Amino acid sequence: MGEAPAPKEHLLIVFFRDQPTAQLEYVQRKFPEAEVTFHKIKMGAPVPKELAQKATLLVTFTNLPNPEDAQNLKLIHTFSAGLDHLLGHPILQSTNIPISTSSGIHGPPIAEWAVMNWMVASRKFIESYEAQRAHRWASVNEYFDGLSDQVGKRVGILGYGSIGRQIARVSAALGMTVYAYTASPRTTPESRRDNGYIVPGTGDADGSIPVSWHHGTDKASIHSFLSLGLDHLVIAIPLTPQTTKLIGAEEFALLSAKSTNPYTKPYVTNIARGKVIDQDALIASLKSGELSGAAVDVTDPEPLPEDHPLWDAPNVHISPHVSSLGREYFPRSVDILRLNVDRLRKGEEMVNEYKREKGY
Amino acid sequence: MGEAPAPKEHLLIVFFRDQPTAQLEYVQRKFPEAEVTFHKIKMGAPVPKELAQKATLLVTFTNLPNPEDAQNLKLIHTFSAGLDHLLGHPILQSTNIPISTSSGIHGPPIAEWAVMNWMVASRKFIESYEAQRAHRWASVNEYFDGLSDQVGKRVGILGYGSIGRQIARVSAALGMTVYAYTASPRTTPESRRDNGYIVPGTGDADGSIPVSWHHGTDKASIHSFLSLGLDHLVIAIPLTPQTTKLIGAEEFALLSAKSTNPYTKPYVTNIARGKVIDQDALIASLKSGELSGAAVDVTDPEPLPEDHPLWDAPNVHISPHVSSLGREYFPRSVDILRLNVDRLRKGEEMVNEYKREKGY
Repeated sequence: MGEAPAPKEHLLIVFFRDQPTAQLEYVQRKFPEAEVTFHKIKMGAPVPKELAQKATLLVTFTNLPNPEDAQNLKLIHTFSAGLDHLLGHPILQSTNIPISTSSGIHGPPIAEWAVMNWMVASRKFIESYEAQRAHRWASVNEYFDGLSDQVGKRVGILGYGSIGRQIARVSAALGMTVYAYTASPRTTPESRRDNGYIVPGTGDADGSIPVSWHHGTDKASIHSFLSLGLDHLVIAIPLTPQTTKLIGAEEFALLSAKSTNPYTKPYVTNIARGKVIDQDALIASLKSGELSGAAVDVTDPEPLPEDHPLWDAPNVHISPHVSSLGREYFPRSVDILRLNVDRLRKGEEMVNEYKREKGY
Repeated sequence: MGEAPAPKEHLLIVFFRDQPTAQLEYVQRKFPEAEVTFHKIKMGAPVPKELAQKATLLVTFTNLPNPEDAQNLKLIHTFSAGLDHLLGHPILQSTNIPISTSSGIHGPPIAEWAVMNWMVASRKFIESYEAQRAHRWASVNEYFDGLSDQVGKRVGILGYGSIGRQIARVSAALGMTVYAYTASPRTTPESRRDNGYIVPGTGDADGSIPVSWHHGTDKASIHSFLSLGLDHLVIAIPLTPQTTKLIGAEEFALLSAKSTNPYTKPYVTNIARGKVIDQDALIASLKSGELSGAAVDVTDPEPLPEDHPLWDAPNVHISPHVSSLGREYFPRSVDILRLNVDRLRKGEEMVNEYKREKGY
C-alpha cells in the first residue's frame, strides 16, 4: 500500500547436489517477484558467466562468480555460517557486493541432536532398542535404578552462540540450570543479546536463560567454569589455535571431580570441532568412568578411520558431522535472504552481514 | 523463629524392593524431625502391626495397615498417581486419615522419553548407532534429505494433565505449536490451571502454552482435534470404558489425511495405556505408511508376548512401561509428603489430597 512494487529479481541458487522440488517451490513462494534458477555445480567451481551476469541475488555454498560477471548482483547469500572457505576469492577483495551468512539456523537441529543423546543415555534407549529386537519385555528391575531425568541438572555451555542458546532453551524447559561461557566478558544486557538471525520461536535472544555468565581465554577461567558442579558440558566454541585441544585430561578430571551428582558422572557433548578436544584423553576418561558418556558429532580426524578406538569407547555416540543437517536447512537459509532483500530495499541494516573490514 | 518445634514423627516407608542408601538418606535430610523406618514387604501385604502402630506418617505403594493399627497415623502418602489399586481397603472406608498421591511427578521423565523418541526418529539415531557399531563413517548423502527437526511442527496432546503439560513445555522450547485436548471444557483461565503437585521448574501451571484448547468425549470432538494438521499425536488420557480403543483405524486415517507436512506423516506417542489404542490398527497404519512412526511405553497386553507382530512393526519403538521410572521418583514423592506435612501442621489444604467423597 503506497510502496513501489518490488523490482523483478533474478535469484540464482548454486549447489553441489540437486534440491527436492518442494524446496525449490518454497523459494518461489518466498520470492514471488523473482525468476528462480537452480544450477547444480561442482564444489568450488566458479559460477558460469551467463548465469552470474543475469543474477541479481545469488545463494551459494562454495561457488562464486568472477567479479566482472557480477555487475547485477545486489546480494550474495551463503548457506554456511561462516565464510572461511571463501575468504580468498576476488569477489570479496575487489567488490562491495553485500554478503550474508546462514549463521543462526543451526541451533534447532543441533540442540535436538544434543538432548536426544542425553536422553538416550539417561533413559536407557539402547537397552530398550535391543530388547525390542529380541522381542523381550524387560522387567522393571532392569530399569528402576539406572534411569534418570534432567530436572535440576546443571549444564555448562562453553560457547554461548546461537547453537548454545537453543540448547539452553530446551535445557531450561527440561528443568535444568544453565551456565554460559564466552571468550569475552558479557556483563551488560546489551552484550548478552544475540544480534544474529534467530529461527522464530527458538534460542535465547536476550541472554536471559543462564543463571550465570563466565568468560575468559585462559586455562584458569576454563577451569573455574568446569568446577561449577556440572552434569553436562557442551562444547560449542570455534576451532582456533587457542582452542585446539583446549579440553583434555586435566579438564575431564576436574569436571569429574567437581561433579555433585551422587549417581552419574558428567556427560560431554561436542558439536564444535573434533580438535577442540584431546580425543585420546576423552577415550581414557570414558574408559575410566571419569565421564559417564559423550556425544560427538565431530571427530579428529574426519572421517574417523575404521580402526580408531573412539568407535568402541564406552558410552560414546558418534555421528558423522550431520547434526546441523535437515530438510529445514535450505528453506531457513532462504528465509534469511528474504529478510535481507527486504531490508536492503528499505535501506535498513541486514542481519548476518559479513563485514569485509572486520573479517567476520 | 517463634514457631513451635516440629513434633517428633515416625515416618514409615514400605515398598516391595530395597531402596538405595542415598535415597533413604534423602528422606532423613528432608525429615530431620523424624525417625525414618524402611520396611521391605511383599506387594499387597498388610503393614505389620508393630510398625503401623508406631508410625505417624506412612509412605506406601500397595501396602496399608489395618484400621485398628493406624491410631497414630496422621497422613498416608502413596507412591502412585492414583489409588485405584487401594480403593477397596478398609482404611479408606472406615477412617478419615488424610491420603495424598504422587500425581504430578511423572511429567519430567515421561516427557523426556517422548521427545527422545521423536528425535530418534527425526534425526536417524538408529542409523548412526548401527553405523557406529560397524565403525562406518556414513556419508552426508545418507542423512541430508531424511533428517528434520521439530520447529513449527504441531503437536496435539490428548489429555492435558501433568504429563501432557511437561511435554508441551519441552515442545514449545523446541519451537513447536501445542494443541491441548481435555474431556471437559476449559474455557476460563482458572479451569486451565494445574492444581496438583508440579515438579519445580517444569510443566504448564497456568495452561498458557497451548495455542488452542479442545474438548469433548464424543467421536466428533476427537475427530475435529485430529483434523488440526498435526505432526504429532500424544495420547495421555486415562483408560476407561469410554476411552477403550478410542484411537483406531478411522482416527489414524484421519490424522494422516489431515497432515499438512509434505515430508513426514504423523507420529503417534502413547504413554497412556495400551488398550486406549486399537493396536492392530496401529500396526496396519505403520505398515501402510499412514503413520511415520510410533513410540509406545504401553501395550495390549503387557508384557507383550514374544510372537506379537507389534515388535516388528515399522518405525515403532516399544519400552516396557518404564517411561515414568528413575532415581528421581522416590525423592520427588517424598517432596510431596514434606510439603503436605508442613501444610497439615499449619492447617492449610494439602496438595494431591485424595477426597473420599469424590472418589479421586
